[in-house]
Amino acid sequence: MADTKWTKEEVLELHRKLRGKVGIEGKSPINTMKDLSLLYTPGVADACREIAANKELAYEYTMKSNSVAIVTDGTRVLGLGNIGPEAALPVMEGKALIMKQFGNINAFPICLRTTDPDKIVEAVRHIEPVFGAINLEDIETPKVFDIEERLTEGPDALGIPVFHDDQHGTAIVVLAALINALKVVGKNKETIRVGVVGAGSAGHGIAKLLTAYGVKDLVVFDSKGAITNLRTDLDLHKMELANITNEGGFNGTIKEFQGADVLIAASKNGAVPHETLQNMKNDKIVFSLSNPNPEISPEDAQNFGVRIYATGRSDLPNQVNNSLCFPGFLRALLDLRVRKITNKMKIAAAEAISGCVAEEELQETKIVPEIFDTNIVPEIKRKVASAIS
Amino acid sequence: MADTKWTKEEVLELHRKLRGKVGIEGKSPINTMKDLSLLYTPGVADACREIAANKELAYEYTMKSNSVAIVTDGTRVLGLGNIGPEAALPVMEGKALIMKQFGNINAFPICLRTTDPDKIVEAVRHIEPVFGAINLEDIETPKVFDIEERLTEGPDALGIPVFHDDQHGTAIVVLAALINALKVVGKNKETIRVGVVGAGSAGHGIAKLLTAYGVKDLVVFDSKGAITNLRTDLDLHKMELANITNEGGFNGTIKEFQGADVLIAASKNGAVPHETLQNMKNDKIVFSLSNPNPEISPEDAQNFGVRIYATGRSDLPNQVNNSLCFPGFLRALLDLRVRKITNKMKIAAAEAISGCVAEEELQETKIVPEIFDTNIVPEIKRKVASAIS
Repeated sequence: MADTKWTKEEVLELHRKLRGKVGIEGKSPINTMKDLSLLYTPGVADACREIAANKELAYEYTMKSNSVAIVTDGTRVLGLGNIGPEAALPVMEGKALIMKQFGNINAFPICLRTTDPDKIVEAVRHIEPVFGAINLEDIETPKVFDIEERLTEGPDALGIPVFHDDQHGTAIVVLAALINALKVVGKNKETIRVGVVGAGSAGHGIAKLLTAYGVKDLVVFDSKGAITNLRTDLDLHKMELANITNEGGFNGTIKEFQGADVLIAASKNGAVPHETLQNMKNDKIVFSLSNPNPEISPEDAQNFGVRIYATGRSDLPNQVNNSLCFPGFLRALLDLRVRKITNKMKIAAAEAISGCVAEEELQETKIVPEIFDTNIVPEIKRKVASAIS
Repeated sequence: MADTKWTKEEVLELHRKLRGKVGIEGKSPINTMKDLSLLYTPGVADACREIAANKELAYEYTMKSNSVAIVTDGTRVLGLGNIGPEAALPVMEGKALIMKQFGNINAFPICLRTTDPDKIVEAVRHIEPVFGAINLEDIETPKVFDIEERLTEGPDALGIPVFHDDQHGTAIVVLAALINALKVVGKNKETIRVGVVGAGSAGHGIAKLLTAYGVKDLVVFDSKGAITNLRTDLDLHKMELANITNEGGFNGTIKEFQGADVLIAASKNGAVPHETLQNMKNDKIVFSLSNPNPEISPEDAQNFGVRIYATGRSDLPNQVNNSLCFPGFLRALLDLRVRKITNKMKIAAAEAISGCVAEEELQETKIVPEIFDTNIVPEIKRKVASAIS
């Protein structure tokens, strides 16, 4: 792997130098009074009048068609937890930078000074006119599920798509990686047994998307054990998981989970005991997504004979990272004027990402493309377009 | 004057081509996995942690120190009235473009889907963490006065400055133009008689700033006549004007107003009758700011012997336009980390703008600099800095 070592001093020095990883770019110079008249008052009034008569023309005459709001309340930032909106901003700026470079999207960070879900829904509804899509980011669960649902369905629903990256983005990249991992080991989505450890945003999104994709035997674990209809302590969102997963009604802990082909951990360091790895079938596939300390260390993966091992880390092979998905998926949502995200679109995006690794390159340590692969964004757009056409 | 003629077709074609007059610029390329680690996860966590421990460091490590939100509800856009947030966007983008080109400021349009003042205050409070200043724009009166006050004073006050361009920006440029006009005609701020026609955002701001500057004899007119303490139909904001202006208690209509040295109209075409111009003193100074149709036409100004005539139009001499002020004034607010705008700062900005016309250039048709004068922004910053030091 390339040298990715960095120091805290380097990070702070770079951030201090940039004072904002993204800024505003003017797209047309003002050199003459005529320029000013066309781009600003009084000429601009003609563009205003057209849109006032037909709001849809905002997509034609303004930034709306290519603008994304990256919305957070700073309650669940990276592995850092509830650090507040100011401290969340460097991450949101980083996302905006990635969206620009890889997807040519104009994404702007909106870090909210409220953690109240009603207020968050209201704030997003209020700022919506300027944006073509909303990217919810780093908001704690289960609150974020409600926020996403309200912005997508019912009286508070927006007319633009709402993408929750921690949920949908992670799920899409995990599915992409799984599609290729299954090819490498020669197993089938309909016969594999999958354990998902963690029922936060990522675990939730992964379980739902893998089920929609056709994985039949899948069990989700939270800190109390397998999520099943027999449990009486489940919130609505976990009840939803209980209804669509764990058909066999497995009722034990992760330690007792037997015969998994695939283990996907989106929890925290220490959440997966050695017994689980021991009890897996041959050709073990393990995705351990906690960052920077994976639930299952590379050493443990090796010791327990894991055949395909993926993490979120950039210094290890098979980096399962959302940045493989979000620039292309948001590009597709904007260009296709999608109003609501469906599983079909997410599966198409996953297939596009997995397809960016050529058959002949495919191997245990190469199940996902690199973020620098310039095919990813156009491929996602192409596949999502044909999925909805 | 330069050719500034434009057609509706040119405006629409340019807007269609640009699809957003501003966009997001990435300020640091991501070429390697190390770049990604420094600018995004996992390295970025170090910047987040520092800010979480000390929120003020957001000014050092993020875009906050150079970001402005241009906030509107689309209720009073240009001369177009209540056209809604989507239709207001081309104007806000134009302002953002000007702020970038002339002030190197990263301004982002926030067009709100609500016209309720409580909700507007709340929305601005919610989005504040990302911004170093707020620019309220094209919100109807008297609502906007309350919104500005609440965001500036009391329990809803922000920790960042709130600039209402239609009020403060217009007043600053009018004062700048007046300072130079008085020099040309050899009159004194303390002895002139001034009539302000219109008590909306502009008239309100102009009357307050000119009074703070030391103009003693000033009368504001709304559609019912002079604003005076004798009237019983005044809202709180007009009562404020009645208390600080019209010391002589003039109680007539604009038609009856006698002996003005200066007339400043920020109302609409037809609001100033010929009698008023007739009744003015010698060396008449008239600023007629309604755009594109001034309250007093250039022909009338000439017929009634107006010596100095200024408008908001770019195709006539003496263009009194907010764009002379806002890039520099916001640049000053950000760089000086101002928390609250004062009259002292506004007067300093006006003096800076008027000072950009050299004494030897000063004449009837040259009382303000052109927007392309690159001295304006640094001069405003310099003068505001010394005014508050």
